[in-house]
Amino acid sequence: MTFSTKATIASFGGKLVKLSHASSSTGTDMAVNVYLPPQALAGAKVPVLIYLSGLTCSPENCSEKGFFQHAASARGLAIVYADTSPRGLSIPGANDHWDFGEAASFYVNATRPPFADNYRMETYITSELPSSLVADAEYGKYLDGSRVSITGHSMGGHGALSLYLKHPELYKSVSAFAPIANPTQCPWGVKAFSGYLGDEDKEAWKQHDATELIKGWKDKTESLKMLVDVGTGDKFYIEKQLLPENLEKAVKDAGLTGFELRYQPDYDHSYYFMASFSDDHVNHAAKYLGL
Amino acid sequence: MTFSTKATIASFGGKLVKLSHASSSTGTDMAVNVYLPPQALAGAKVPVLIYLSGLTCSPENCSEKGFFQHAASARGLAIVYADTSPRGLSIPGANDHWDFGEAASFYVNATRPPFADNYRMETYITSELPSSLVADAEYGKYLDGSRVSITGHSMGGHGALSLYLKHPELYKSVSAFAPIANPTQCPWGVKAFSGYLGDEDKEAWKQHDATELIKGWKDKTESLKMLVDVGTGDKFYIEKQLLPENLEKAVKDAGLTGFELRYQPDYDHSYYFMASFSDDHVNHAAKYLGL
Repeated sequence: MTFSTKATIASFGGKLVKLSHASSSTGTDMAVNVYLPPQALAGAKVPVLIYLSGLTCSPENCSEKGFFQHAASARGLAIVYADTSPRGLSIPGANDHWDFGEAASFYVNATRPPFADNYRMETYITSELPSSLVADAEYGKYLDGSRVSITGHSMGGHGALSLYLKHPELYKSVSAFAPIANPTQCPWGVKAFSGYLGDEDKEAWKQHDATELIKGWKDKTESLKMLVDVGTGDKFYIEKQLLPENLEKAVKDAGLTGFELRYQPDYDHSYYFMASFSDDHVNHAAKYLGL
Repeated sequence: MTFSTKATIASFGGKLVKLSHASSSTGTDMAVNVYLPPQALAGAKVPVLIYLSGLTCSPENCSEKGFFQHAASARGLAIVYADTSPRGLSIPGANDHWDFGEAASFYVNATRPPFADNYRMETYITSELPSSLVADAEYGKYLDGSRVSITGHSMGGHGALSLYLKHPELYKSVSAFAPIANPTQCPWGVKAFSGYLGDEDKEAWKQHDATELIKGWKDKTESLKMLVDVGTGDKFYIEKQLLPENLEKAVKDAGLTGFELRYQPDYDHSYYFMASFSDDHVNHAAKYLGL
């Protein structure tokens, strides 16, 4: 898999490269932005923080407004800004809702037609995207594929938490901003999982729900290495779409350690919130990535 | 003049407030965003850095993408993100070009019809906006109107430099990102000044041109307190719209001190460039604002 470079932009002493590649997981071209810190450009193989965006977003939004580059430059890690779904497909129902279909994949492998053939975002994010980047002739030399962490916002916070808990061997740590932390119990999640996974086997939904996955976390002696920020002025928190309190209770009930949930006074759901705390999330990842 | 509050957003421990007010200078409602750092919310009267945006922009762009709040929060100064022109007027020719008319005022007081009645941005930026904010019943208590600096990007960099050099008594320091530094000698500036000031008296144009104003800088013993960043990959620099080299030569020929021009390798004209160096510009202002 070769990446084509659409743009190269100087940022905080490093380079933000805007890439696209033909994905076998989704059957489409996928856009991805990668921030290469100055340490990488100077010859170091740097660890990687994968960032998953929220509903309606593309790799562009957080690249411009999240300011992860600030701390990534200081600490020396790469940021991979993935896209939120395949795009440009003529799938019935994929473009009728802002919270379902295009830019709203929920990072699952869909099992239900008409989405099952292309909406295979779990495979894309956990396997194809990182392995393709590390193997890439131009960009692989900058990246240490053995040191990867994951983070995300809102739907992407759900993605980060659930993929980390399903595939703990892939990631050194996880963090999330305003995650949809218990999607089987909120309207956004129910709508998405019904559409992508079907209503027949709701037990299967639990494999994509961070709060449910916590209950099955295998090794209770292993720290979760999980940081979560939620703004108390976030309307989606107030409307019970996020439910971080359920995640917190599940962690407590399971007797797990290494979980930090911070309620940030007055912060909303926006990139202003993320920008205010992205240094903390990069530093959280850096701690576990050996930096 | 009372400001109405359209939104209040938590950001870096402080608040970004989105305001509008009826302007006597422009005869329109004007939008302005103000960042109040945590020190202001805790009771301090903080100094002010006025930010002037570039062509096509509103107060929103830099509030979201410039990253000024990061250092403003750390240092304890307010940022005032002004708008780039009056809006919503039915002036012939004001909406036909992206680089002239609405969102392209060049921060002058127009002298030529049909712009002279409303495009009075020099008066608005240097007088009405700061005095109205300081006098405001809700927001005045946070702001120290005796300590003000100015900065800006592109057309706003021209605005910051030219207003500072015309009104040195108003500002403690100045900085600019990719400024239009010699507008009488570049296509953007000639188009704007022809439209707003007319072609009859080109000597009058020099009162709005930083490079020309440097020649008349009154007190050569006074340091310029001027920081300018330009990206070497900026296509508008390459196309000779910015001409920082002319400003640098004028400073040298005048024997002035306190001028720092930094060419930043590979950086472009975008907010990625500004975000990478906005800490430096806030710190430059803070040094002269007594912080």
